[in-house]
Amino acid sequence: MSSNSTGKLFTVTTFGESHGPAIGCVIDGCPPGLPISEEEFRQDLDRRATGKSRHTSQRREADEVEILSGVYEGRTTGTPIALLIRNTDQRSKDYGDIASTFRPGHADYTYWHKYGIRDPRGGGRSSARETTMRVAAAVIAKKWLAERHGVRVRGYLAQIGEIAPAGFDWSAVEQNPFFWPDAAQVPELEKYMDALRKSGDSVGARVNVVADGVPPGWGEPIYGKLDGDLASALMSINAVKGVEIGDGFAAVGQRGSQHRDEMHLDGFTSNHAGGILGGISTGQAVVASVALKPTSSILIPGRSVNLAGEPVEVVTKGRHDPCVGIRATPIAEAMMALVLMDHALRHRAQCGDVGEVAPRIT
Amino acid sequence: MSSNSTGKLFTVTTFGESHGPAIGCVIDGCPPGLPISEEEFRQDLDRRATGKSRHTSQRREADEVEILSGVYEGRTTGTPIALLIRNTDQRSKDYGDIASTFRPGHADYTYWHKYGIRDPRGGGRSSARETTMRVAAAVIAKKWLAERHGVRVRGYLAQIGEIAPAGFDWSAVEQNPFFWPDAAQVPELEKYMDALRKSGDSVGARVNVVADGVPPGWGEPIYGKLDGDLASALMSINAVKGVEIGDGFAAVGQRGSQHRDEMHLDGFTSNHAGGILGGISTGQAVVASVALKPTSSILIPGRSVNLAGEPVEVVTKGRHDPCVGIRATPIAEAMMALVLMDHALRHRAQCGDVGEVAPRIT
Amino acid sequence: MSSNSTGKLFTVTTFGESHGPAIGCVIDGCPPGLPISEEEFRQDLDRRATGKSRHTSQRREADEVEILSGVYEGRTTGTPIALLIRNTDQRSKDYGDIASTFRPGHADYTYWHKYGIRDPRGGGRSSARETTMRVAAAVIAKKWLAERHGVRVRGYLAQIGEIAPAGFDWSAVEQNPFFWPDAAQVPELEKYMDALRKSGDSVGARVNVVADGVPPGWGEPIYGKLDGDLASALMSINAVKGVEIGDGFAAVGQRGSQHRDEMHLDGFTSNHAGGILGGISTGQAVVASVALKPTSSILIPGRSVNLAGEPVEVVTKGRHDPCVGIRATPIAEAMMALVLMDHALRHRAQCGDVGEVAPRIT
Amino acid sequence: MSSNSTGKLFTVTTFGESHGPAIGCVIDGCPPGLPISEEEFRQDLDRRATGKSRHTSQRREADEVEILSGVYEGRTTGTPIALLIRNTDQRSKDYGDIASTFRPGHADYTYWHKYGIRDPRGGGRSSARETTMRVAAAVIAKKWLAERHGVRVRGYLAQIGEIAPAGFDWSAVEQNPFFWPDAAQVPELEKYMDALRKSGDSVGARVNVVADGVPPGWGEPIYGKLDGDLASALMSINAVKGVEIGDGFAAVGQRGSQHRDEMHLDGFTSNHAGGILGGISTGQAVVASVALKPTSSILIPGRSVNLAGEPVEVVTKGRHDPCVGIRATPIAEAMMALVLMDHALRHRAQCGDVGEVAPRIT
Repeated sequence: MSSNSTGKLFTVTTFGESHGPAIGCVIDGCPPGLPISEEEFRQDLDRRATGKSRHTSQRREADEVEILSGVYEGRTTGTPIALLIRNTDQRSKDYGDIASTFRPGHADYTYWHKYGIRDPRGGGRSSARETTMRVAAAVIAKKWLAERHGVRVRGYLAQIGEIAPAGFDWSAVEQNPFFWPDAAQVPELEKYMDALRKSGDSVGARVNVVADGVPPGWGEPIYGKLDGDLASALMSINAVKGVEIGDGFAAVGQRGSQHRDEMHLDGFTSNHAGGILGGISTGQAVVASVALKPTSSILIPGRSVNLAGEPVEVVTKGRHDPCVGIRATPIAEAMMALVLMDHALRHRAQCGDVGEVAPRIT
Repeated sequence: MSSNSTGKLFTVTTFGESHGPAIGCVIDGCPPGLPISEEEFRQDLDRRATGKSRHTSQRREADEVEILSGVYEGRTTGTPIALLIRNTDQRSKDYGDIASTFRPGHADYTYWHKYGIRDPRGGGRSSARETTMRVAAAVIAKKWLAERHGVRVRGYLAQIGEIAPAGFDWSAVEQNPFFWPDAAQVPELEKYMDALRKSGDSVGARVNVVADGVPPGWGEPIYGKLDGDLASALMSINAVKGVEIGDGFAAVGQRGSQHRDEMHLDGFTSNHAGGILGGISTGQAVVASVALKPTSSILIPGRSVNLAGEPVEVVTKGRHDPCVGIRATPIAEAMMALVLMDHALRHRAQCGDVGEVAPRIT
Repeated sequence: MSSNSTGKLFTVTTFGESHGPAIGCVIDGCPPGLPISEEEFRQDLDRRATGKSRHTSQRREADEVEILSGVYEGRTTGTPIALLIRNTDQRSKDYGDIASTFRPGHADYTYWHKYGIRDPRGGGRSSARETTMRVAAAVIAKKWLAERHGVRVRGYLAQIGEIAPAGFDWSAVEQNPFFWPDAAQVPELEKYMDALRKSGDSVGARVNVVADGVPPGWGEPIYGKLDGDLASALMSINAVKGVEIGDGFAAVGQRGSQHRDEMHLDGFTSNHAGGILGGISTGQAVVASVALKPTSSILIPGRSVNLAGEPVEVVTKGRHDPCVGIRATPIAEAMMALVLMDHALRHRAQCGDVGEVAPRIT
Repeated sequence: MSSNSTGKLFTVTTFGESHGPAIGCVIDGCPPGLPISEEEFRQDLDRRATGKSRHTSQRREADEVEILSGVYEGRTTGTPIALLIRNTDQRSKDYGDIASTFRPGHADYTYWHKYGIRDPRGGGRSSARETTMRVAAAVIAKKWLAERHGVRVRGYLAQIGEIAPAGFDWSAVEQNPFFWPDAAQVPELEKYMDALRKSGDSVGARVNVVADGVPPGWGEPIYGKLDGDLASALMSINAVKGVEIGDGFAAVGQRGSQHRDEMHLDGFTSNHAGGILGGISTGQAVVASVALKPTSSILIPGRSVNLAGEPVEVVTKGRHDPCVGIRATPIAEAMMALVLMDHALRHRAQCGDVGEVAPRIT
């Protein structure tokens, strides 16, 4: 399978460079008969889009999705769904001067060593531009999961630099440009980000993603575990350096008597496991958290080398996010939705559309 | 591909239940001509084995590996290498009373909901017994990586409960039953573990794994990233709840000017990235860290439900590790070795056995 | 995916050399709850077994299947089912003299060029001994297909050298050692085979396989077509040089008005298509035919070269079938059953356990 | 892996319906640095194109390939290469009347039963329009195979209805619209086709494909055999009902002494095997042959049923080929090239870019 594909049965293959003619994806394995239209992609793409606020990169693209195949009279036909977005705001001149330099902390150096050639325009294939298509593909997955299983996947920003949410309210998340769950902190965040941008630096972030409504039984031992696939899918997002399921690294300091989620007839008493045991969903909320590094595209000069083997000093110009973690929220949601969709189909393949087989608690 | 298989080109498929007749694996895609004998599996299997010290589970198995295929006159032939270990110390009576109860924090409940049937003997397929074959398969990967590329994969216990290493010395790691990098702390750890066992409780741990000698260029964008595959492989280990590459979650609080690894002609100045940028190795050490939860198999009673839908209280008897994280060290090494081996072959497939294409720093 | 694995969801991985310690397979993706016992493998393995009559190779093996995993209290659990057969009748001395010679028409030469090393004992991995595990794995597939969908897969010998069946009767097929559908011709075949064996030569054959009861809708466009997967699966059988679906090569000389299968309310008027259109089953019988070459293991000397680069003359001693096509009948059935099983699960994954959506004719 | 993808390492994913907005493909795993331009696709697409002569369908499309990604400054970068062709000549009104009828011999009926929905415009996904992208993708494979290994893949029409070539000359093949290897027969073929078109009927054909220059060692046992993958790839072409390797079905009537290819120091004495033994290339020409059925789109009325479950009579109007086999020649070449390319990379992955290991004859 192509390394630009993800999913065993609900398979998404993406293509395209940041400043090439277009980006796109091919989604295969979608159940037939699902209603879908080009308009339905807009909301999530807008959530992910650059230029949403002054706190994210100022690249502005229409990001109009064209459905090239797999949909007939507004419904999926079961054949591959190809989506295309033309790159309209390419400004390749912004990047012309970095073709011969390896920017520290970027994939420039590794792509060069792997392939002996690289597309330097906007980071080429390594740009987060690629994640647009993940979000687009996940629009279809989210819709099917919601309609068929009542599953809802939502994310929020759980930390930015040293600031963590003081309170938590899902309804706040979509009301501010930070996907922040505490509306009262938004002014503080705006001030923080303004200062950061002025300093020319960037900062890391943590994003949490939660899927409600996942039935027990999704996921497969041993190398097809739901948490294993989530880990891979989330780690594949640009700038992600860590993935946790449930309590994650906090479990290192816990006792077994504290971590295990006891079961009562009316439900689990806790969810330290993050909704997954033995790689299979428990029926509780599936909870994951990712760490995003501070982007390396900053105005503060950094030392590096160039193609000629000489030492150079690099300053990244152009449009860049001081905190890529903000826009990562819909991307992390997308990856969780894609993984769940894939496992829903995988479970149905092996075990059928079975009813309850054991006392189910929630 | 089977969900009990891992690796795209160096493919390992495992089978077997904890208390079934045997466990085993089939390794495919191994380069031909590699010398291998049954004796070579002993060292790493002993490192992983239960009963190594009083601090780990007392299950004692010979764990004699039989090579069933793929090796002729002491060398791999390029055909599938099947390895078999008979289960000799099964004691299934220890587990007889849990067949109708869902132990809290175990996969009992999820396997039941997925399949409608489960093998309750020793945890069946969800037992860490399966990881024996990962370690066995990785013996071959480690050997090839070392001989062909000079790659060395090593792990150590980086935290146990609230205790972290005070000093660091690779040579200490193999000299104590905890894979602990500071010999001076071993008496403290022994006391800690003895107290824990007496309390009937368990504790979490952190394991770090480091691969030296990995050349730049291994790994593939986008869904075949080296860190993505490592995340999946490490998360698939029993009890793992979190995976970090390089600085991991510490990056959340960092600035870009602090995180990016600057490059000089004589090397990188730091390794916050953990040896991977854009999903591809940089030529620095590849560094990963995993969080292991405290096992749920403890002597302290916990509340649960049974198959009949009644509330029950569960106490886990039998042999169990108070800290599964200790024995996870060779398993984590194994998973990193398997991922690196797979990517070495994948890189050679697409890019050939190329020499240097760009100024390489280390 | 390993090249020693077949099937996307019902995945069979085989291992083992002809004269190594054992052969075996790992079956993954099997639906849980299917009753299966070691005794159930005997019938099909006997049908495939060597030494069944004087017309096939005289190697005699017990071929006792041991179930190593994936079955608990007589039912599949959904985890990998490993099957093992020890090689008991190895007689490696028979083959000792061919280690340094490339037998004409064998895989000796190609394995050597690929791997630079080969296991010469009995053909090693390239021996038809491997197909034993295909037949074993298909016992499970056949049972599930029959119980769940009423599908029955049957094969017969449709030509041997220049002799074709004069009549056709399914009930005759299992009553003679040739799987021949016309009982009256059996004496003629016996005489033919006796003469052939005396001449020291071998002969080709054609095997037909038919699956009844396959519902319409199995198979996937474009590269997952049911006929594409059948072609691959059947061509993978040792000695097969051609595969036909339905009319196969006879279609070359047909007119469209003659080939197309017209539809009436009470069914199709013909089955030139062999039950597959556009890669998807029509609901008619799925019909395939394979050509098997005459084995190259004959007593008539042939010219070849050896490892030292010298010309040599080769005579194959030992036990060999004058017509490998005879024993290929249960193997071809097995491969069709494995492909159908895989597609049954794949169809359920994407399209669910749906009822009728269109007027169905048979 | 998506069923609309083919190839393990050189992976081609196609998308698009006959009368949708566009068709396209994503090619992944291509070695970096290969020069490629949009102009290079023209020749093979023209060879495949409809409307090339009066003997093929009159659909006329520009079939202009746009490279959307994976190529930078005229060279492949190692990232996915997306190719797009807009459908410009759709004429969907031609097909409007068949939306509610199942045409006999078409995929209408099977797609409907599988998905419960189908795109009836021009056959939707089941149209041979899809093969355009196979030919386009294979342009890249052919170029790499030629430059790197000196492999050349060529096909020709080996039978049309009852007419077989009287003579054979590769140089004639590209000089007539039938890919016919005997120039002297072209007038006869033209008359034959004219009569066929007047009769409103269609006819079957046989296409042969030959790859010269394939080194020994490509292909993998057991389910990744070179002939197994060729069988699947060739059978996946629209209208193909049979695949042969080397002597194919002629081997049924042969003796072992006749079929086996003896080896001398200066080469094989024959090539009955078609260049493949044990699933691995011998170093001789790889030879395959396919049978194509007569298309079901004919002017002669046929009986069928419609969506309402009523008997109907169907006449196919619109543009159709009286012999789809003619245009299948470049498509069959394309599939062989894709399979060889994939196996070249797979071989390099496991066995490296090794030199000669044994006396090689040709």
